[in-house]
Amino acid sequence: MAHRLGANRYGKAESRVVRIVRDTQRHELHDLNVSTSLRGDFEAAHTTGDQAAVLPTDTQKNTAFAYAKLHGVGSVEDYALALGSRLLDACPAAEAAQVRVEEYGWDRIGDHSFVRRGGSVRTAVVTVGREATHVLSGICDLALLNTTDSEFKGFLKDEFTTLAEADDRVLATSLVARWRHTDTDGIDWNASHEAVRATLLETFAGTYSRALQETLYAMGCAVLDAQPGIAEIRFSAPNLHHFLVDFSGFQIDGLSNEGEVFVAADRPYGLIEAQVTRDDVPPADEAWLAVPGFC
Amino acid sequence: MAHRLGANRYGKAESRVVRIVRDTQRHELHDLNVSTSLRGDFEAAHTTGDQAAVLPTDTQKNTAFAYAKLHGVGSVEDYALALGSRLLDACPAAEAAQVRVEEYGWDRIGDHSFVRRGGSVRTAVVTVGREATHVLSGICDLALLNTTDSEFKGFLKDEFTTLAEADDRVLATSLVARWRHTDTDGIDWNASHEAVRATLLETFAGTYSRALQETLYAMGCAVLDAQPGIAEIRFSAPNLHHFLVDFSGFQIDGLSNEGEVFVAADRPYGLIEAQVTRDDVPPADEAWLAVPGFC
Amino acid sequence: MAHRLGANRYGKAESRVVRIVRDTQRHELHDLNVSTSLRGDFEAAHTTGDQAAVLPTDTQKNTAFAYAKLHGVGSVEDYALALGSRLLDACPAAEAAQVRVEEYGWDRIGDHSFVRRGGSVRTAVVTVGREATHVLSGICDLALLNTTDSEFKGFLKDEFTTLAEADDRVLATSLVARWRHTDTDGIDWNASHEAVRATLLETFAGTYSRALQETLYAMGCAVLDAQPGIAEIRFSAPNLHHFLVDFSGFQIDGLSNEGEVFVAADRPYGLIEAQVTRDDVPPADEAWLAVPGFC
Amino acid sequence: MAHRLGANRYGKAESRVVRIVRDTQRHELHDLNVSTSLRGDFEAAHTTGDQAAVLPTDTQKNTAFAYAKLHGVGSVEDYALALGSRLLDACPAAEAAQVRVEEYGWDRIGDHSFVRRGGSVRTAVVTVGREATHVLSGICDLALLNTTDSEFKGFLKDEFTTLAEADDRVLATSLVARWRHTDTDGIDWNASHEAVRATLLETFAGTYSRALQETLYAMGCAVLDAQPGIAEIRFSAPNLHHFLVDFSGFQIDGLSNEGEVFVAADRPYGLIEAQVTRDDVPPADEAWLAVPGFC
Repeated sequence: MAHRLGANRYGKAESRVVRIVRDTQRHELHDLNVSTSLRGDFEAAHTTGDQAAVLPTDTQKNTAFAYAKLHGVGSVEDYALALGSRLLDACPAAEAAQVRVEEYGWDRIGDHSFVRRGGSVRTAVVTVGREATHVLSGICDLALLNTTDSEFKGFLKDEFTTLAEADDRVLATSLVARWRHTDTDGIDWNASHEAVRATLLETFAGTYSRALQETLYAMGCAVLDAQPGIAEIRFSAPNLHHFLVDFSGFQIDGLSNEGEVFVAADRPYGLIEAQVTRDDVPPADEAWLAVPGFC
Repeated sequence: MAHRLGANRYGKAESRVVRIVRDTQRHELHDLNVSTSLRGDFEAAHTTGDQAAVLPTDTQKNTAFAYAKLHGVGSVEDYALALGSRLLDACPAAEAAQVRVEEYGWDRIGDHSFVRRGGSVRTAVVTVGREATHVLSGICDLALLNTTDSEFKGFLKDEFTTLAEADDRVLATSLVARWRHTDTDGIDWNASHEAVRATLLETFAGTYSRALQETLYAMGCAVLDAQPGIAEIRFSAPNLHHFLVDFSGFQIDGLSNEGEVFVAADRPYGLIEAQVTRDDVPPADEAWLAVPGFC
Repeated sequence: MAHRLGANRYGKAESRVVRIVRDTQRHELHDLNVSTSLRGDFEAAHTTGDQAAVLPTDTQKNTAFAYAKLHGVGSVEDYALALGSRLLDACPAAEAAQVRVEEYGWDRIGDHSFVRRGGSVRTAVVTVGREATHVLSGICDLALLNTTDSEFKGFLKDEFTTLAEADDRVLATSLVARWRHTDTDGIDWNASHEAVRATLLETFAGTYSRALQETLYAMGCAVLDAQPGIAEIRFSAPNLHHFLVDFSGFQIDGLSNEGEVFVAADRPYGLIEAQVTRDDVPPADEAWLAVPGFC
Repeated sequence: MAHRLGANRYGKAESRVVRIVRDTQRHELHDLNVSTSLRGDFEAAHTTGDQAAVLPTDTQKNTAFAYAKLHGVGSVEDYALALGSRLLDACPAAEAAQVRVEEYGWDRIGDHSFVRRGGSVRTAVVTVGREATHVLSGICDLALLNTTDSEFKGFLKDEFTTLAEADDRVLATSLVARWRHTDTDGIDWNASHEAVRATLLETFAGTYSRALQETLYAMGCAVLDAQPGIAEIRFSAPNLHHFLVDFSGFQIDGLSNEGEVFVAADRPYGLIEAQVTRDDVPPADEAWLAVPGFC
């Protein structure tokens, strides 16, 4: 036969796991979206329909719920490591298990009452292989905006260029960031995540920007500077354009626009993707397999 | 002709108005989604194509942006009142102008830097008519969850009923609430909104629930008790089901489920809509015209 | 107490009911999204937490699935009428049951194989009351576009008007239309729906447009002219703006734009809502209760 | 410094390009969503803020619109090849330009009138490099459903497995498929796409399925068998679960369920990704860079 099965993978996506800790009257809440997948030698399932090596996606889902109790959700990374190890153990044909988790934040309004925080979502992508294990922590839907200290000029121009140079513009993005930890144990995942998030916000707020690229690079460097345990960080960042509204056609007293009124555009948007990498840490392509944004 | 034009309305929906106040180095940011519409005598536009009475939706959009500067956005209600009055003045054929605003919250992370808050969105629906003006303040996407103190039992049963009575269940919703103010001026809209939001949260957290209906009614009563200037409040509240995961099929030590692990379901969901109304205030159907959720 | 419960309603939204008819080897497929709600005297559920009168939303869901078998889905209107009658019978406290259905079309690619059609969705909203029954048939997500024969000029101008008059523009919408039948039985619902859809398309294609309002009115009149059993029709129609791209800044041979290249904008959009009503049929507000788009 | 810029890329995403051909009274319509990106030596933009090598995303957008006129949209592949070549020429620092296009289908209802087809979307991802050019044709949102001839049994079981073996189940997916052409010119792209789509549908309809994996593999083999010019095909296919509704708790005449009533679930869903590759064609990782689904 002139063709063959190539890479393949299967799993259960988007199990909505809610874990309540009710050991005391002051309950805790963890609200997760969990996806698992396995890759390895599943050729027979494709070519002959023989499912003997296939741990069903339904079982993967059951395990995700069970491990929310058996192992708990002290941190999403820790939970994902335990779940990934279990799935790899349970499925001999698998070379690696990947577990992706999104955690939706809730703020407490009572001993057993919560209001959903909204805004950014904490993420983890854990790959447990036969040889190595990788942890990517991350954040998505982190919408950031600077009202000034942003320019864009000195760019390449061709015959299709009409963009005016900008000395002072709004810079806004809805950031996806993922960072790979050099090690996968002995880490206080929650503290580490909180620290990286704080660094990202501080650097975004404190950096004069000559392009979104420069801001992202500064954010990446700041994270690697502050966190010796992080090997690399990757960003996927839309440039959410805010166009100054042109009031020049109106003859109305007081209707000027000194960077005060903008239209927030939906599409198109710029899209910037960039990585910042520590020099002395080997790459780990496997950790990023099938993770959108420079996978 | 045996048929005729009935009710009609037209406008510009979802202008994304961003207003930055940069009077000092500490900038302010207002991020709005503004929709306007006019109703009145626009019959010719429909029947003969004569547009002489029609203020274009493009002009309505321009006015929405211009008023973000000319009038400012001290509060969404105040901005909407000014914009609605202007549109009514500018269009003699209109009987009423309706302005709907959603305001997305941002938290400050620097003098000119912000991170989007997410979570609930503040809303306003203002109707400026020739005779009367109405203000509906509101909130949407307010996701609330109680991990206990919620039951559902004693309900009507028929031959299709399989639901078990529940003594202790998760109660969760993503609330839309809108409330009508008796008056439309002399009000500190921002303080009023903050107070209503606080009452909604406190009451949700503090009420033992025998049904989502009871919780909503308690929330409505609490708001009307606390705010003499509010004539009525209306809720549209999905019952976001959280089903206890059944671990009984597994023979695994420690794998019990005493209200600890739930699956958050997407669809179907319960949908509860209810109004609480002050006895001595006349109704104002016009205020709710074309507002989803018991309009 | 100075306040009281006002209007209220409850039900189960968005049950995804899939019905397969497999009487012969050539299977049939009906793919529905079903929402039911009851209104009536449910005051105790709100004020005292007594659920004795409340038929659970879970039971409503069970009934929706059971009736897909017991009654079948010959047409969505017919199914909704049967389901609404059953719910009203099962719940003595209810004054009326409303059933909303969306039907997703699938095209046959084999005796038991289908590909989802996409595009417009067929809808029905049936209200079964103690006194009267109403049927609204409808269609949503019907995206229509004319590349010419559309103008917009002669409109009202004020100091915020910058829109140029247009002799030849793209006219595009994503239509929601709902129409009320005078009677509720003896109707071939499928044939009726097909005929209305055909009239809407023909009229959109065949009408020179001086505004979207004029086009909608023409479509409404054409439907009422062709279908004596339809009492009224209501439209909610975004004006999906297509802006001519300005190539005038480029000095490139052949780069003109005689109505050939447009940018399809997302937001804002015009929003036109209009009704066309038969003169001699009494109104039926109840039929439109809580149906968005001039409810 | 211990860290450095890694891979990076930038461009303009989701330009909504609408091209009307009006050479005769019978107009043609092409409705596209176009994203472009460049990768290469853009280090200075990140590290020093120097934009001299950066062709602005705004210029990329302008070029996308201009090429809809200058080159036309005979096929999305052909348009993307021309646009990608132009962008690479215009930006000396770039190593490669990637152009992604989605084309939304419209059906004719008049000489200048169209109704949007909905359903599946045709896609193309073209990478124009200094050394090589690659074309991926594709389709997304292709929802397919078999009502029978699908089983799932003989799978691996562990202590968390509760899934019953199924002899006859609904098989449904919303397919994303992308296939790489060995050559990039001399191809009738439209005919090729139509032929692949037909093969995918025929094979889905005609294959008895022992797992979605087997069906996908059969579809991939059928495409490669029929199309010697296609080097490989990749699938990302959710397993859209349809669960048989359990009527066993009801004591109602006629209420059985022999594969007739199902609930269509939203989440979680299985997710199967697989590639089928021609043996004698070298891989081309660059073609798949940053394309989700086994990139």
